[in-house]
Amino acid sequence: MPDEFYMRLALEAAWEFQGRTYPNPAVGCVICSQHGEILAIEAHQKAGEAHAEVRAVKTALGRLNPSLIFPQDPTALHAFLLANHQNLLKDASIYVTLEPCNHYGTTPPCALLLRALHVRRVCIGMKDESPKASGGMARLVKAGIGVKQGVLEKECALLLAPFLAWQKGHFSFFKLAMSSNGVIDGGIVTSEASRKRVHELRQHLSLLAIGGNTVRTDRPTLDARLCAGKAPDVLIYSREAQFDQSIPLFSVPERKVTIASSWEPLLCSPFVMIEGGEGTLRALPEQTQWLLVFRSAHFKTGQCPCITARFKRVWHQPCGEDMMEWYIRE
Amino acid sequence: MPDEFYMRLALEAAWEFQGRTYPNPAVGCVICSQHGEILAIEAHQKAGEAHAEVRAVKTALGRLNPSLIFPQDPTALHAFLLANHQNLLKDASIYVTLEPCNHYGTTPPCALLLRALHVRRVCIGMKDESPKASGGMARLVKAGIGVKQGVLEKECALLLAPFLAWQKGHFSFFKLAMSSNGVIDGGIVTSEASRKRVHELRQHLSLLAIGGNTVRTDRPTLDARLCAGKAPDVLIYSREAQFDQSIPLFSVPERKVTIASSWEPLLCSPFVMIEGGEGTLRALPEQTQWLLVFRSAHFKTGQCPCITARFKRVWHQPCGEDMMEWYIRE
Repeated sequence: MPDEFYMRLALEAAWEFQGRTYPNPAVGCVICSQHGEILAIEAHQKAGEAHAEVRAVKTALGRLNPSLIFPQDPTALHAFLLANHQNLLKDASIYVTLEPCNHYGTTPPCALLLRALHVRRVCIGMKDESPKASGGMARLVKAGIGVKQGVLEKECALLLAPFLAWQKGHFSFFKLAMSSNGVIDGGIVTSEASRKRVHELRQHLSLLAIGGNTVRTDRPTLDARLCAGKAPDVLIYSREAQFDQSIPLFSVPERKVTIASSWEPLLCSPFVMIEGGEGTLRALPEQTQWLLVFRSAHFKTGQCPCITARFKRVWHQPCGEDMMEWYIRE
Repeated sequence: MPDEFYMRLALEAAWEFQGRTYPNPAVGCVICSQHGEILAIEAHQKAGEAHAEVRAVKTALGRLNPSLIFPQDPTALHAFLLANHQNLLKDASIYVTLEPCNHYGTTPPCALLLRALHVRRVCIGMKDESPKASGGMARLVKAGIGVKQGVLEKECALLLAPFLAWQKGHFSFFKLAMSSNGVIDGGIVTSEASRKRVHELRQHLSLLAIGGNTVRTDRPTLDARLCAGKAPDVLIYSREAQFDQSIPLFSVPERKVTIASSWEPLLCSPFVMIEGGEGTLRALPEQTQWLLVFRSAHFKTGQCPCITARFKRVWHQPCGEDMMEWYIRE
């Protein structure tokens, strides 16, 4: 199969963890054996945990030698893989959405690991432009490993874009739950899987912004209970400062709630999800370029929002029976 | 990778040709080498042409031996593969959405071919219940080939359902072009790829049904010019029998146009696509259980239909930058 086939699998794995890896980027990795069998499809899942490449090497080795018992700690795992790979991944092909890192951060350089494995080829989606982590490609080339750069580069750049925006100080997206036919109101729209994913995202936010009308109508809690995670601080965007304090979101422990009539606090926050309905979508600040639609598998009777902003779908993949669809402004 | 991974690739290939294979079913096939490398992902494309298994064997052999020159004719191809496989697919794994056929139809039995190749495993999505073609599995088992049945059986049954309905006398579906946010009106909604796919479907229809209001408003041609195909006969569903005869659909050569105030002619026709807007969707006959949505990648400003019928998405895959989404009534 063409390299793009495998890179797409790496991309799909990585998008599962979009927005959940800061201060690291979302990265996906696929390993094929010397014979072309897919041995691993993995992604970086969380800062402090193993990089995508390390996870993929672990999965691939575990498949080839089921007697291996891997340590949990990512640094120990890295050392273990270096010591126990038994040349099982010699001549393997690696597909990774971002150039393998070349620096000692929380974990040792991925480029070192791939070099030690004697893999045959490394296909890279896009170059790492950060002065800190870049140089992995050069290290691999120097070791005589075939390196191909730019496989699905546009798609890989898109995967990285939220991280780069976050790194520059601000990434925000509007989250919308929508039926198949565009209905967004009338109670719960999406399935449990989507609602759980929203909670998984919430626990990584620096701020959750929401429209005042939505707060008054839905009386939400806005916590991360479906994944037993930390509830985010909340910004309520409202001209009216008065809210019924019995609305559950005000009673979540260790939460700061700000009520503001401008998006200013949102723009000063590094990672923001905006929730709300038609009105909030219409009032969205220009700086919010991204939209995440959780689309249910069902048709629903109800009002569809009149959306005048122009968005284009740039990625989609299943989330349980729903779809997760990422859009950017056109 | 688990068997389901490969079966899903076979399913995706097959859905590309859903509705375009009668009097044959839509079938997909994947071949992995003895080492697990994916060598072919193919589907049956058109009656009279090679079955999915034969196409996949051809692709796989062509990859392993690029010097092979294959005949075009499917029966000649079948014989060629039997004579020239050189045991290159010995111990390969085959994934096929429907039990390989066991009868001499337009082409010889696929089960015979797979047996001759000495493949190691055949994974089957669902059993072929037709008295004519079934028995392939038993033939393979008898030859000592490992056969696994029921891989993604529900999904494979869904793929076959339109064919089984057609075989019993009637399969119809409603086709809807929809923006990301549910808008269906206001000129062209989807991209060229979707419109071409609609034309590819039209040339296989026994009847194209359309609502009278849509005919009056859109003044369509309803031919298959984007794929240089045969224009289907048209049923206009309307209480009013009077139509402006300068509407292009009336001038398409070799076409029969029927105007009726009931769906009766539709229900007597074996393979029908229904086009139209909100009104037609609302008046859809109960017998029409399926809905095909071509969903654009863009948001659009406009009216969304109030859909009271309940549908559930059962399959989706890309069509250019759009999505093709198949729904059935709940």
